[in-house]
Parts: sequence; structure tokens; C-alpha cells
Amino acid sequence: MNVQPLLIEGDWQLPRELVGTLRAEDPTTGEAIGPAFPIVGAADVEAALRAAVAVADELAATPPERIAAFLEAYADGIEADADTLVALAHAETALPKQPRLAAVELPRTTGQLRQAAKAVRSYAWTSPVIDTAAGLRSHHAPLSKPVLVFGPNNFPFAFNAIAGSDFASAIAARNPVIAKAHPSHLATSERLAQLALAALRKSGLPSASVQMLYHFDHEIGAKLAGDARLGAIGFTGSRAGGLALKAAADAAGIPAYVELSSVNPVFLLPGALAERGEALAQEFFASCTMGSGQFCTNPGVVIVPRDEAGDAFVAAATAHFANAAASVLFSRGVLDHLRQGIATLCAAGAEVLAGGEAAAPGYRHAPTLLSVDAAQFLRAPKALQTEAFGPASLLVRVDDVAQMAQVAAAFEGNLTGTLYSATNGSDEETWTRVAHALRPHVGRLIGNRMPTGVAVSPAMNHGGPYPSTGHPGFTAVGMPSAIRRFTALHCYDHVPDHQLPAELRDHNPGGVARCIDGCWCIDDLDQGAQHA
Amino acid sequence: MNVQPLLIEGDWQLPRELVGTLRAEDPTTGEAIGPAFPIVGAADVEAALRAAVAVADELAATPPERIAAFLEAYADGIEADADTLVALAHAETALPKQPRLAAVELPRTTGQLRQAAKAVRSYAWTSPVIDTAAGLRSHHAPLSKPVLVFGPNNFPFAFNAIAGSDFASAIAARNPVIAKAHPSHLATSERLAQLALAALRKSGLPSASVQMLYHFDHEIGAKLAGDARLGAIGFTGSRAGGLALKAAADAAGIPAYVELSSVNPVFLLPGALAERGEALAQEFFASCTMGSGQFCTNPGVVIVPRDEAGDAFVAAATAHFANAAASVLFSRGVLDHLRQGIATLCAAGAEVLAGGEAAAPGYRHAPTLLSVDAAQFLRAPKALQTEAFGPASLLVRVDDVAQMAQVAAAFEGNLTGTLYSATNGSDEETWTRVAHALRPHVGRLIGNRMPTGVAVSPAMNHGGPYPSTGHPGFTAVGMPSAIRRFTALHCYDHVPDHQLPAELRDHNPGGVARCIDGCWCIDDLDQGAQHA
Repeated sequence: MNVQPLLIEGDWQLPRELVGTLRAEDPTTGEAIGPAFPIVGAADVEAALRAAVAVADELAATPPERIAAFLEAYADGIEADADTLVALAHAETALPKQPRLAAVELPRTTGQLRQAAKAVRSYAWTSPVIDTAAGLRSHHAPLSKPVLVFGPNNFPFAFNAIAGSDFASAIAARNPVIAKAHPSHLATSERLAQLALAALRKSGLPSASVQMLYHFDHEIGAKLAGDARLGAIGFTGSRAGGLALKAAADAAGIPAYVELSSVNPVFLLPGALAERGEALAQEFFASCTMGSGQFCTNPGVVIVPRDEAGDAFVAAATAHFANAAASVLFSRGVLDHLRQGIATLCAAGAEVLAGGEAAAPGYRHAPTLLSVDAAQFLRAPKALQTEAFGPASLLVRVDDVAQMAQVAAAFEGNLTGTLYSATNGSDEETWTRVAHALRPHVGRLIGNRMPTGVAVSPAMNHGGPYPSTGHPGFTAVGMPSAIRRFTALHCYDHVPDHQLPAELRDHNPGGVARCIDGCWCIDDLDQGAQHA
Repeated sequence: MNVQPLLIEGDWQLPRELVGTLRAEDPTTGEAIGPAFPIVGAADVEAALRAAVAVADELAATPPERIAAFLEAYADGIEADADTLVALAHAETALPKQPRLAAVELPRTTGQLRQAAKAVRSYAWTSPVIDTAAGLRSHHAPLSKPVLVFGPNNFPFAFNAIAGSDFASAIAARNPVIAKAHPSHLATSERLAQLALAALRKSGLPSASVQMLYHFDHEIGAKLAGDARLGAIGFTGSRAGGLALKAAADAAGIPAYVELSSVNPVFLLPGALAERGEALAQEFFASCTMGSGQFCTNPGVVIVPRDEAGDAFVAAATAHFANAAASVLFSRGVLDHLRQGIATLCAAGAEVLAGGEAAAPGYRHAPTLLSVDAAQFLRAPKALQTEAFGPASLLVRVDDVAQMAQVAAAFEGNLTGTLYSATNGSDEETWTRVAHALRPHVGRLIGNRMPTGVAVSPAMNHGGPYPSTGHPGFTAVGMPSAIRRFTALHCYDHVPDHQLPAELRDHNPGGVARCIDGCWCIDDLDQGAQHA
């Protein structure tokens, strides 16, 4: 069979154990496009794992400058190849070339790689802590084991298993990455892998530092996720898939950073609606349908008071949804999942205000607005928090502020929660009450803007309480914070200075922020001297 | 039945569902001592969980000053009650009153509570990060859910579920604690709970912030550990018990910080042995038998070259072990576990050089030294890393430095790893080679001292790769680092200043170290101004 090769051990290799093939599809037509990619068996997975294990120690000992050089060379390579990458990603995902792919996601991706390089050079992700009196020095260090990364369907560049945040984070922490491509953008992923390999060769990192597999079945995936030779897993995708991998990893003591699902509740406080309901309806509709709504932070549930301004908002939003053309989704799977989600919401008492139907050709669905009473939401909170991934959102109509707070408290873990308030301060008390109820249930609390923008910032939290992710203490986006997921805490107890890692020695290797005896500074430590 | 009451919802309550009783034992005789403590059923566990859940939000919103006041009042109370506590702990554990209980462990415990209080006042555990350009501010925040803490047998004060590091960490992060006492020191735990309650009342924290259960069966424990109302678990104890709780917690997405087992390899490099082999034999023997060897960081495996200096070390160590009186262990369970561990080591090829036998009365065992060839160790690394918790250690005899490095690389995850080297620099190359091989397998790498000392320091790592603990990125000892285990990352995105938590506002609440636009400082942030 004629299939694309895998990237294993620094070379493009034909599969050892080909169990099937897979082709990308044009979502606008549903037709297969591009070459056949291999679905592999255990032998190929084992080859990649062995190769990664074999270079893990060498990579962990690689000077930061070479890691940073790789990340920057890779970013340069992506930029130089932007036209091809954008064309491939557009064909495979139907996401618009402009602005989304070319002007937003690609620069975001290269920016992220460069921010990771900067974090590598500054050692910021290592968080050095020195206690001179106790003779103890600690920092975050590489896992010295491979990291397995599963990319999601919805970001062909920025969360791609071989170019996105998990990838950049794991490599910045000097761990080899085994990338598992997403079937929704196979050729895009292959092209990125080619660019990664070129950057790898240019910067002289070990050849198996970056490897690429395209597909394997669930059983093999779970076996790999639970292999004790693995250091960690980064996963973004469906709840069912993520939980299966997490269960396998948990049983082997492997940290699995899984980003699963989120409905991202948006609370429209009464003053905000009275002040600018019409504008909010437009803003909400644009956020919910941008990228066909295929965002982890899509506003999936909107809480609207049952008053005059609320009714006007609903009418305006309904009109926007009703007048919109059908959205193109990534795949048959996404379309089926959306239809199921909408059916689950309806079965639990929601009614469709606009949309609700799939369309042809390809994988299309009408932007869909649903509505339900807060009383019913509180009766069936689990079913009515079903994620309908795509251009769909559920309005929850509340009688008063007390019920709004009750609804806020009923949410399971989400990535984000948003409050819109009046500019004149009239929502002040309501904000306090609703925000207090909502805060423990979300990773990022947002004021007066839609959740769909996720800035790559050290202060970002793209994470949240279970079941939005598997651990409430980590973010998947933002340097250096996201890097810390793929590290081990290492302590040195009375170890001679010259045997310490550079950033823990008396001599500061250059502007590294270190916490010395309780104070952050970028100073050298005088040999033998007590630090004040 | 006449049983001691439980501490639930701020009161001493008789069990709702008494399923049995338990008494402490005098380990020197094996006789039951003190009153009967309740083994409870699901109703009591549910009562404690409900009460904790009910106060979680209130506690999360409590000003840091009141949390710190509680921790300090509790430390004061423990000090004022030191004589009684030491007498109780001595009777229940047979650990020496002096220096261990009175002069070492009790001050360590109160010092830890006070360090936690200091971390609370400084907000150090919250790690505020501000990005002015992106409008984002994040920090670590309370889980707003209860933390379940299981204390181990071996520290009646410093790791007690109601006074130790997990307890202090969880409370510092403003989470309610449900403490599960260890059967090895029931009356000590009860006394501590009384002191905790007094401090709770004095500082005015919610009544159910601290609760105490004594015992329940494994099934109820697993059900509780997997209850989604729980925020996290802190566990120190046996590998089997910890893994069962972790599995239940994992399935519910609850972070379980489990400290399981560790053999803490110690490498005696050739130069060190030639220089001071006799002294090292004494140091090793003292460390291995101190506290009857019942430490998580006991030197359980010692790697010794097969040369003249190595033989002399072994002869000296063997004499120390052979001449020592039997050690008193905590319980029948510890004694049985030690005998099983020694039997497993022998079955895997180790030979007993000294000791090897249990003794009477009570729970006694001879300090035991075993030895095995490195070649055999490398053939059966799993069995020969069996933890023989107690005054026992396995010598691994290596032919050369290459084999020493091979053995280092064969270790599974451990809390610590130690290298002893010559003072004249002759072990330099060997150090580099062995330390490099060992580093990824241990949390704390130690130079020229035994691993049994665990300083309470911000730079400590009392943690390590699986299976020594469940996550390689966290420490169970050291403030503020240990606190971070019981937190959630919270981000604020364009939230008005007055709606932010104190440490994220423009105005620094007082000396809080914050990372603002990439630089750590204790400055205020000028409203609206760009920070350089």
C-alpha cells in the first residue's frame, strides 16, 4: 500500500506494521483529499517510544541555548512556509485563510514557540529556590522521559501535536515529544513535522527529540499512555478519549494533562443588558459562530434574566442565528457529536429557538440557539451542561439574581466563566454575588468580553477544575507556566557548586530570577556567604 | 459501647454508625493501652464530608490573617501541651521522648505550622502573576473543597493528619481538612485534635474547618477518596493503601498526593570509602536504626564497591548491626511487613549479614543488614528494591564504576539518592557519572550526608518520581511549596481592580512578591500605567 512515511528516530520511515490507512477530507464536500496516511500497530509505536527513551537523557542535558535555537528555527521555518501551511490547513479544516489561519493562528503559533524559547533562555520555567542556611537548592527539571502529545481537531497550528503549546512546552522542558496527529489535518501535520525535522537538524538536537505518528487504535493508544517509560501526556480533545488515556496513565503513575470539555458559562447581568443588549447579542453571536464555534472556550451556555431587556436580547440573538448560513464543521464526527449534543439538550428540556438542523454538502450545521428555564436547568444540570461542540449555545433564563447565583453554583468545572456588567456600576452587587458563586468552578473569570480569545501570556490560565481538565493547578497555554507541566521537582542537598545545574550555582548564569532565602533576585550568591 | 467521640462540625460527637473499635498498643509489650476509638461507617464519613463542604466557601473567603492566627494559636497550644503530647506519643509509638519526640519532632511540627502561617501572611504560596498588556492576572487559590488527609504511622506529630505538613498546607490554602488518624497513635491524634479545636475557636474559623475521624474500612475509604465533593487527598503510608486511594481519586478527577515508598539508595564512592570507611559505617548504622529505621528516607539500599575499602566498610557495618539490640517497631503490622520485606529480598538472592530475626516482647526486630551482588540486583531489580520498612538495609556490591552507574540507572522512583565522595576530589569523575545516572530517579540528590534529615525549607523536595510519590512535580514538605498542592490556578481576565483578590490588585497588600510583566517585585502597580 502506498502510504506516507512516519517520522521516527530522525528519519521518514515506512510503517513496520501497517494496519490501515486514513485520508483527510474536505469538510465542505466530505470528499477525501490528499495522500493516504498510515494507521500503525504496536511495532511502530514501540519503535518511536524506544527511540525517544534512548535520547531522553541526552536531550535533558542539552544546553538551553540549543533548545531555544531549535524553537526559533522552527518558528522561522513555519513563517517561511506560511503560504503552503495555510493552504493545506484551509483545505483540511475549511477554516478561513484570512484572518483566522494566516493572520491569527499561524502568528500565534510562531509567537508561542518564540515565547517558549525566551522562557528556555531565562530559565523562568525552572523556578530556582535556594535556601543557603539549609544547604538546599531546588528547581524544576526535565522529566528525562518522552512526552506523548495528542493534538485536537480545532487548531491545525496552535495546538497541533507537533507545533502547539503542549509540544513547545514539552520541548522547552527538554523532553522528547512523540506527536500523535489529528485525523482532521493530516497533511498539515506532516508538513509541520518536516519543518520540525529541518529545525532539529539545523540546531543539532538528538534525532528522536521530535517524532510523528498519525494514527493508531484506542487499544494501542491506551497501552502507550500507560507505558511506564513515558514521562507525561498532553491531550486536548473529547472527554471520552481523554478520560480513557488518563485512566491508563493514572494507573502507571504518569501525569496526564488532559483538556476535555467546557461550556464556558456567560452571565449577562441585568444592567449590562439594559445598557447594551443589542450589542451583546451581536458580540455573542459572533463569538459563538466564529470558526464554526469549534473552540474549547466557545460560549456554550448564556444566562439571561427573564425581563424586558433579557427578552430583547433573546429576540436579537435569535434573529442573528436564524439569519446565518450553515457553518462548515471539521468532520463527520464533529457533526454527529453536535447533533447528539443538541438532541441531549432537547431531551433534557431545552427548546430550539433557531437552527437545529444539519445541512449539505459536506459537514454543515445551522448555527443553533437553544433555551431553557433556570428551574429546569437546576433540575437536570448534568444533561443541560452537555457540550454541543460547534456553533450552538444554550440560553438559561433566570427569574432573578438569586437564581442566577444558584445556576452559577451548579456548574461543573469549566475553562472559563464570564460576567457582563453595566458600565455605570449598577451591577456591582450582582457581580460580587454571581462571581463568588462561579469562581470555584472556572479556571479563568472574565469581565465583559467573550471567552474565545486565549492570549499566550504568563498570566493566562487555559485550564480549570475537573472535568474541564484533569488537574486544577495547571494551564495548557502561557509561557513559562505551561512548561512546568512537563517537569520534575529536583532538589540538591549539600551538593558542591560545580556539580549543580547552571541556574542553581552561586554564579547566576545571567539574569535568572531566583528565590534566594525568601527573596526574588537576579544576583549572584557570594560563595559561602549568608544571603540576607 | 464506650468509645471516644469524633470531631465533627466543631463538636465532639458520638459515632452515628459504630462498626467496631480500635485501641492503641504499647509496642514494647504488644498490650492494648488507652481508650477505645471508634471504627465508623458511611454515616459518619458523610456527616464530616457534608460539614466540610458546607464551610469550604466561607473558609476560602477568610482573610489570611485569621488563617495565620489559627496556625499560630495551634502551634502555641501544642507547645503548652508538650509534656502530655510527648508522653502520649511515647506510650503509643515507643519513640524516645528525648531527643526525638520532645526536642526534634514537636518543635519541627510547631515550626512547620508557623512557617505555614508566615506563607499565609506573605501570600507566597499564591504566586501572583500579572500581565498588564494582556489584562490578565492569575494566582493560586483555595480549592474551595475539603482536603482528606491520611497520616502515616511514623511521625505522631510532624506528619500527623491533624498537625503535620499536609494538614498545615491544606489549611494554609484555606481548605477544610478531614483528618484520618493513624491507628498507631490514636490518643496522640485525639489530643492534637482537641488543641486544634481550641485554636479554631480562638481564631474564629468556621467550626468544620478541621475534623477528625479515627478509622473506617478500606471500602469506605475508597468511596470517600473518589467522592467528587472532595478537593484533594494527602496520603503518606504504604504503597498498597496509597495506590488504592489514588485509583479511586483519579477516577473522579481528584488530585491525590500520595507518598508511598522509597529505598533511598546511598552510593559510597571509592575515594570516600578509602578515606573514611569506618566513620561511614557508623554514620550509616546510626541513620538506618534511628527511630527503629521507620523513616520514609531510611537508607534502604547502599551501593558499595567490591574492593578492600568496601570489604572493610561491610565488615564494620556488619559488626555494628550484629552488636545492636533489637529495635522496637510501631506495630504488629510494621513487624510483619518488615519480615515479609526481608523474606522477599532473600528470595531474590540477598543474604543476611547480621540480624534477620524478630524478637520479644512486643514488636521487636533485630537491625538487619543484607547483601547482594550487583549482577544479581540488575537481574531482579524489582524484587531487590522491595522496601523493608524498619531497621534494615541491603548492600549492593559493585565491581566497578560502570556497574555502579548501571545500578543507579536501574532504580525506580525514590524520594532521595545520596553520594558520598572523597574530600580530596578523587571521586570527581565517578560523582558526575553516577549522579547523572541517578538524578532522574530521585527527588532529592544528597551530598555526603544520610537522607534521614528532611529540613522544612522552601528549597526542600520531599517528593520524587513514581512510585515514590504519585506526581514528580510536588513536595510534601517545605513552605510555601507544599501548600501549592492544595490549590487551583485562578485567572482574572479584565476583571475590575476592586473585584480582584487582594494580592492581585494594583495596590500590593504589603510586601507580596509578584511577577509583573516578567519581573518579580513587591511594588504597587500604577493604575492604568504600563509596567516596564
